Amino acid sequence: MLWKLSNRAIALKSSAIREILKITEQPDVISFAGGLPSPNTFPIQEIKNAFNHIITADEMSGSLQYGPTEGYAPLRIWLAEYLSRRDHTNIKPNQVLIVTGSQQALDLIGKALIDKGSKVLVETPTYLGGLQSFTQYEPEYISLESDEKGIIPEKLNDKTASDANFMYIIPNFQNPTGRRLSLERRQQLAEKAIRNNLTLVEDDPYGELDYQGHRLPSLYKLAPENTIYLGSFSKILAPGLRLGYIVANEKLINKLVQLKQAADLHTPSLTQRIAYHVIKDGFLDNHIPTIRKLYGHRCQAMLKALQKYMPTTVTWNKPEGGMFIWIELPKNINATELLSEAIQHKVAFVPGETFFANAIRTNCMRLAFVTVPEEKIEQGIKILANLITNWSDILEESPTIM
Amino acid sequence: MLWKLSNRAIALKSSAIREILKITEQPDVISFAGGLPSPNTFPIQEIKNAFNHIITADEMSGSLQYGPTEGYAPLRIWLAEYLSRRDHTNIKPNQVLIVTGSQQALDLIGKALIDKGSKVLVETPTYLGGLQSFTQYEPEYISLESDEKGIIPEKLNDKTASDANFMYIIPNFQNPTGRRLSLERRQQLAEKAIRNNLTLVEDDPYGELDYQGHRLPSLYKLAPENTIYLGSFSKILAPGLRLGYIVANEKLINKLVQLKQAADLHTPSLTQRIAYHVIKDGFLDNHIPTIRKLYGHRCQAMLKALQKYMPTTVTWNKPEGGMFIWIELPKNINATELLSEAIQHKVAFVPGETFFANAIRTNCMRLAFVTVPEEKIEQGIKILANLITNWSDILEESPTIM
Repeated sequence: MLWKLSNRAIALKSSAIREILKITEQPDVISFAGGLPSPNTFPIQEIKNAFNHIITADEMSGSLQYGPTEGYAPLRIWLAEYLSRRDHTNIKPNQVLIVTGSQQALDLIGKALIDKGSKVLVETPTYLGGLQSFTQYEPEYISLESDEKGIIPEKLNDKTASDANFMYIIPNFQNPTGRRLSLERRQQLAEKAIRNNLTLVEDDPYGELDYQGHRLPSLYKLAPENTIYLGSFSKILAPGLRLGYIVANEKLINKLVQLKQAADLHTPSLTQRIAYHVIKDGFLDNHIPTIRKLYGHRCQAMLKALQKYMPTTVTWNKPEGGMFIWIELPKNINATELLSEAIQHKVAFVPGETFFANAIRTNCMRLAFVTVPEEKIEQGIKILANLITNWSDILEESPTIM
Repeated sequence: MLWKLSNRAIALKSSAIREILKITEQPDVISFAGGLPSPNTFPIQEIKNAFNHIITADEMSGSLQYGPTEGYAPLRIWLAEYLSRRDHTNIKPNQVLIVTGSQQALDLIGKALIDKGSKVLVETPTYLGGLQSFTQYEPEYISLESDEKGIIPEKLNDKTASDANFMYIIPNFQNPTGRRLSLERRQQLAEKAIRNNLTLVEDDPYGELDYQGHRLPSLYKLAPENTIYLGSFSKILAPGLRLGYIVANEKLINKLVQLKQAADLHTPSLTQRIAYHVIKDGFLDNHIPTIRKLYGHRCQAMLKALQKYMPTTVTWNKPEGGMFIWIELPKNINATELLSEAIQHKVAFVPGETFFANAIRTNCMRLAFVTVPEEKIEQGIKILANLITNWSDILEESPTIM
């Protein structure tokens, strides 16, 4: 039997992340690969209480029945208030669409804004999952010049901006680099977007994970009409609930609601209600600081280990939040080949090359520090550093094998 | 701000079902519109027990963490065994993909099998949600000749069959008509599919709701290599959990897994585990017959009321299972106009025209009998019958208003 596959299905390649996540399931591997939140941060007791409340409060039928595509109304109202207060904006509940994890938001946005050949501006590098979603709608990617502070708005000319269907950007503690876009660049970018009628897709799963609790203004705040803001409960509550949300102008939300209806009718009613009952009375105000503290310590542990063990030819950034450190290896080391060897030594990471839409670079890697306890972080970095040192020596001796 | 919408987003029209579902939320409306399972059938106590088991068995971290895109492994194993036993087939766990409700299956299949202009064969009429999902990938629909027993395989010529990317078909108690494809036609269709390398997308959310418990062989059983089988827990457990599944050849499942990863990473871990713990020890074997009995009674109540009140110019089918009765009105009555009036009399239904891909017919309607108690069924049908009688009289008197 030969199925008549679509061009997009034929073009699919097996995902590097998929294969890697399989490896990290082995318990003896020290995995810096998956961007999995630490299970220590899951509010199990609060989720149990929420479920028991739903049962006793006779909310069970509503939790098990079909629900509105837009999402559970009290959760949308809560989010509008929470985000308006947190970001000093004015968001109405009708501007909020609940989605089945913010990965679904990326898929819906691809559907809504990309025709074959549409120009999509992305950071260099950018989130692999975003590329996977958008690619199905066959855009042309334009990778924007970026440095350790994120994209460089000055280098984006008005023609490129006004020709693009949208820019995809993760301003806070980006996946994969961990970097944060500076205030000045946010202002420049917002101005450029407004001037050129450019839509900004602001993906913000890590914004709450600022170790110092010092939040920079969102692009949505700076250019609300131009911005589609994506948020997630995966990093502050639990990813297995698959709960995210989109905030945008109500007219655009209405289009996205129709696309969501065709995609899965609505996000599960039960998980939405559980999340709502966990968070509605201010739980996150106390919970998020405990996550920041845990991840901040693990980040410091990894930075310390890198400093202690890595050869001087290796460089990395110092994140102020989030889950990731981005490593630059000597140019002649291929991180994918390094991974094959690292796995034999029971250490895993994600090679950087999967995160580039164009102009792929092979000598970088993404390390996630949040799932691994501090003592294992040191152990894993030491193993990686030894491998890199050995590779550097070998490559120096016999440059022909490059 | 003007967003650069994709052609598919521009083409979206507001959905009739959406607007109707809003009306049915008013508690004083007798709604035959939404295909909502009766909340009386939701196994609330069993779901509570399953949740408490997950909590005490220390499964909570797994329920809240990211999980595999394919779905929760024990649930896939359970489904492979259950379906193999029920349908006398041989399905392996790797052939099962868990999805966020079977609506997502339709979206993933559209992504995997439709390019712009691809030919998709559909029943006349067919499920609106299927059309909504597929239309986003811009197929050309070919509506197949169908009668009260479903599509007529003899009327499908080999050229049309071999040119199509797939046929979308609901063989059991179809939405919207309630009809079931006969055994003879299933065999003819399977043969035709095998001969012409035609993919059959067999959507089977209602198959378990056979009032006599007399199951006909699935198309998957008759042509396993050609068939993609879609199942759902929405009608036998609870739709708010948003749990469905796809069964197909493993190679095709692998493509669909990649598309699902880009769509929402995976179906929520918590709902999958809850469902698994509810059903794993044979719960459905006792539960499904209670649903069949309830729905069978409500179907009889509606058929009786139709017989009692409807004018002789109105015809309908007698379903052997499922949730719907399909009504044919006199040709000069427009069901959408009738709905506007019916709503003023606090009765709702879905006009038939939304279910046609081509050659729309306006004088039919879908009645769902499962959510409404028996005494309300009689009351609602009486109101509808009176309206139709009045309309028939008026139209007879002044044919020029047609």
